[in-house]
Amino acid sequence: MKLYSYWRSTTSLRIRAALNLKGIEYETMTVNLLEGEQNVPSFVRISPTHGVPVLELDDGTTLTQSHAIAEYLDTISPEPPLFPSNPLIRAKVQAAALTIGMEIHPVNNLRILAYLKSELGHSQEQAVEWMRHWMADGFAAFEKLIEDGEFCFGGNISYADICLVGQMVNARRWGLDLTPFARLVAIDERSRAIPEIAAAMPENQPDATN
Amino acid sequence: MKLYSYWRSTTSLRIRAALNLKGIEYETMTVNLLEGEQNVPSFVRISPTHGVPVLELDDGTTLTQSHAIAEYLDTISPEPPLFPSNPLIRAKVQAAALTIGMEIHPVNNLRILAYLKSELGHSQEQAVEWMRHWMADGFAAFEKLIEDGEFCFGGNISYADICLVGQMVNARRWGLDLTPFARLVAIDERSRAIPEIAAAMPENQPDATN
Repeated sequence: MKLYSYWRSTTSLRIRAALNLKGIEYETMTVNLLEGEQNVPSFVRISPTHGVPVLELDDGTTLTQSHAIAEYLDTISPEPPLFPSNPLIRAKVQAAALTIGMEIHPVNNLRILAYLKSELGHSQEQAVEWMRHWMADGFAAFEKLIEDGEFCFGGNISYADICLVGQMVNARRWGLDLTPFARLVAIDERSRAIPEIAAAMPENQPDATN
Repeated sequence: MKLYSYWRSTTSLRIRAALNLKGIEYETMTVNLLEGEQNVPSFVRISPTHGVPVLELDDGTTLTQSHAIAEYLDTISPEPPLFPSNPLIRAKVQAAALTIGMEIHPVNNLRILAYLKSELGHSQEQAVEWMRHWMADGFAAFEKLIEDGEFCFGGNISYADICLVGQMVNARRWGLDLTPFARLVAIDERSRAIPEIAAAMPENQPDATN
């Protein structure tokens, strides 16, 4: 498989972590978002939203949207499970993961920030304030949607933890005050102690720069 | 089951349509978003994101996030399927649905528009321009992610069509130019001709007002 990815993309991180946990080898195809490579016609053909990650299967089929890719990987390679098989617990894991995936990430996306700055004339400072606002809001909800345990849902890692690890990268990058989110900080640390998750972190990617 | 819903909420529409198609009876619990009922503590306890829909099962368990709820309903009541069972086609349906669910809807959410207006001082006109921009962008991507057929993926309705019907409500409401999206307009019309989908439309809800 090939993964179209950018080191700092936290949606790419989710799929890197999923592939690593499942022991699926893949080749990283760098899409440099800062240099606009997501807008090159050959990439847009496989990613109409101009986004990473895109997973290319060995037969050339391409899949978009991290959440859809994670579910696909969990179906074709069930161990370790990223989503529980019990439908009710599965729905709760999904709801937590989607709270990061829908309520925080898309609102703080690169193209939204670009629009805020170029079309609406806001400063970088206001853009950072915008990001912090939605992260704080979303984390507060996320914390109420998860359950007890070492990880978000008990003793095993799930897709909710993976989404949290990715969002925490952005939270630290943009200086969100994490004091109110002690449990999330602890889960994030425990998750990053897992070698397959550590290997998915931005700084450990072949295309990482400073 | 009880569905916490607001007539104009297009994420509520998705679950009303899913419940109707599957023939599951439910009671509508109105959460008037314009009157701020999503912020009442008793509701926030079951919906930490302050959002509708929330599905309450007969044992009192509550589920949030429309996408997670739709998958849950599809598992406990498989006919007619909203998501195909083939993992690859399923991932494509998911990716299309998530393109509306992630790239359009959360960015145009009520709370985002409120922030644009109150915190960042923009006019209603600029907020409408914002909504149209992300709808046009997202619809263009969505159209490339779906496949041939009467509906988004062949001859049967899927969750991708349901998400499209919901987003089309907002597109018409906010005056998006639909000329470039003739195929989407046709699929939306065909979908709304299905009685279970028609019954899920905003104007047919018990809490609908003008």
